[in-house]
Amino acid sequence: MTDFAATKSMFHLPEGVIYLDGNSLGPLPKAAPARVAEMLTDQWGEMLITGWNRGGWMQMPMALGDRIGRLIGAEPGHVTVGDTLSIKVYQALAAALMLRPERKVILSDNGNFPSDLYMASGLVKLLGAGYELRVVDPEAVAGAITEEVAAMMLTEVDYRTGRKHDMAALTAKAHAAGALAVWDLAHSAGALPVDLAGAGADFAMGCTYKFLNGGPGAPAFIYVSPRHAGKAVPALSGWLGHESPFAFDLDYRPGAGIERMRVGTPPVVQMTALAAALDIWDQVDMQALRARCIALSDLFIAEVETACPDLRLASPRDGALRGSQVSFRFDQGYAAMQALISRGVIGDFRAPDIMRFGITPLYLDDDDIRAAARIIVEVMTARAYERPEFQVRWAVT
Amino acid sequence: MTDFAATKSMFHLPEGVIYLDGNSLGPLPKAAPARVAEMLTDQWGEMLITGWNRGGWMQMPMALGDRIGRLIGAEPGHVTVGDTLSIKVYQALAAALMLRPERKVILSDNGNFPSDLYMASGLVKLLGAGYELRVVDPEAVAGAITEEVAAMMLTEVDYRTGRKHDMAALTAKAHAAGALAVWDLAHSAGALPVDLAGAGADFAMGCTYKFLNGGPGAPAFIYVSPRHAGKAVPALSGWLGHESPFAFDLDYRPGAGIERMRVGTPPVVQMTALAAALDIWDQVDMQALRARCIALSDLFIAEVETACPDLRLASPRDGALRGSQVSFRFDQGYAAMQALISRGVIGDFRAPDIMRFGITPLYLDDDDIRAAARIIVEVMTARAYERPEFQVRWAVT
Repeated sequence: MTDFAATKSMFHLPEGVIYLDGNSLGPLPKAAPARVAEMLTDQWGEMLITGWNRGGWMQMPMALGDRIGRLIGAEPGHVTVGDTLSIKVYQALAAALMLRPERKVILSDNGNFPSDLYMASGLVKLLGAGYELRVVDPEAVAGAITEEVAAMMLTEVDYRTGRKHDMAALTAKAHAAGALAVWDLAHSAGALPVDLAGAGADFAMGCTYKFLNGGPGAPAFIYVSPRHAGKAVPALSGWLGHESPFAFDLDYRPGAGIERMRVGTPPVVQMTALAAALDIWDQVDMQALRARCIALSDLFIAEVETACPDLRLASPRDGALRGSQVSFRFDQGYAAMQALISRGVIGDFRAPDIMRFGITPLYLDDDDIRAAARIIVEVMTARAYERPEFQVRWAVT
Repeated sequence: MTDFAATKSMFHLPEGVIYLDGNSLGPLPKAAPARVAEMLTDQWGEMLITGWNRGGWMQMPMALGDRIGRLIGAEPGHVTVGDTLSIKVYQALAAALMLRPERKVILSDNGNFPSDLYMASGLVKLLGAGYELRVVDPEAVAGAITEEVAAMMLTEVDYRTGRKHDMAALTAKAHAAGALAVWDLAHSAGALPVDLAGAGADFAMGCTYKFLNGGPGAPAFIYVSPRHAGKAVPALSGWLGHESPFAFDLDYRPGAGIERMRVGTPPVVQMTALAAALDIWDQVDMQALRARCIALSDLFIAEVETACPDLRLASPRDGALRGSQVSFRFDQGYAAMQALISRGVIGDFRAPDIMRFGITPLYLDDDDIRAAARIIVEVMTARAYERPEFQVRWAVT
């Protein structure tokens, strides 16, 4: 069981703020500043170069990977941390294509996060010679898995609506057609239970600054199934993925298993902040988190929907089909979100008309959800979003 | 002019240590812990998602890029920070190959850092179809620049010996043959004056955790010449390199100039530590640094060489041909370096027999150099390296 009052107490949440944007950037674990300060002062400052061994820096990508692996149903020793999610998408796709050399199609959907599509299109353009990124509607993916497809690449949970793909079913369908399944867990890791091994996923990757609360610019992670880890050819063949990085051989020989997906020098300072966040996650049961997330989300929908007829639910109504967020469509959603932020309810906006609210049980409880809903109802009822100061656009990430 | 006593006072150097490994990992700027703590607590903690705008996080890659750009002779607005050096090598090479589609050879040398060669070989393997990485001896590069070569990729300063390539001459030779010049500045940035614009370099990249003192895992940087920045096709086409990342278009359109070399979410915590280091660099004149580096290096060579006949100078004797390090060959170099480290003189070892000493005027003065030389002479004279505890190998990074 998980004590969510205890986990809530482990985060710093600013006075007067109800934070419903943990799906974009998680809040600060209270332990992170001291952990990072210790790393800077006692490790970097005092150990200097020897920190790579004495500080355990070199082992962090695998150690952190396993702690994340527990949350996503990965086999131990098959997740590593580093780079950004876009880079990890590229690594997974390139490796998948090389495992299916006779096929040339990457299949994805238009609900995928654009960067995943951009990385795939960059790869396809580089490869030339008939390679193709094929993008269909999310509902059309199952029907589009043909024997031309080398890799099906999907984000499990839609970043806009929270709509959840059926990972096990689509992976099975991909395998039946001889294709590989590559899953982006950006809105899954720390959001809901994931069972990569059970679903038979081939590759997966995700970021750690959203639900995992690793901090701005926290590194990504990548999973390669044990079926492929020893034969996946790394396109981004960096020295830390070499079998023996410090031999400084001129020829590349891939490291054992997932280690070959390491590339360059890992971001020790970012990883230290992430480690502080994972200390909290180590105490969390993902089934308990999921049950509470659905209860809080259902409460939020009920409180908002009945009182705000202008807000149309964009997320699936059935909690089982939804990630850890609730989205509403509203033509003036940008201004409405600005009005909410000015009143301390922080969610975000995604073009053209989606207001997103992350529902994160680790640091949100019933009272927060009711209080946030009350302010949303006030803003909508008073049409506060019509005030000119909320119309001015600035980039929200 | 640069006040090197002042810059030295800005670094934390452990009691009893003379640090001659700034070519591998620079020491901690004293201001870094407070800067990072402020970023974590006041920005991440209080601003949360709004830190991307209010904290200036999104602009950091370009702002830091320009501060590094001054040190390497880049035109303003043509350097951006992010990812790791290996990733930036891949980006530069892929873009260079696409600018010379009728050519298939990447030329490099066996003095290059292995990861650069590994990344090139990964790219070549992915492209297939006649693409080739051709690796020659450093002295043979000039003669190997043929009209088959799409990109000449070299590390300016050899990581083992400090031998310096002639960037301007080799770039001119590459251009005369219609090839592009891609320069790795890992051991140049912050080590010596670099004039990318003057030399006509096409692409360059480097890391910031060595001479620039950005901290373990600090991000890399990449430069693209203004001649190519607007037409280089990014193979790693991530969302933050998109013309309009927050439009969330399904199609990739490269951003303006160097911005297209951005990939994923930048490492804000690492960049904050790097910013503290660059505050020191902003006060440094590179010509003054270079003069002092050569003087200190010459002093070091003189003090060590005469008293230690077993150590054979591996670096060029002429300071103008040398980077910011001095290396000696010694069969028992590994054990000798361990013996030195146990006495507080930290350098490092590179197989098979190279003892490396970084000479970094930012925080080393004449007294440090003389004291280090004295301890080296003691260790060599007493054959302290023969003691069994120094024979046990552990990975030195």
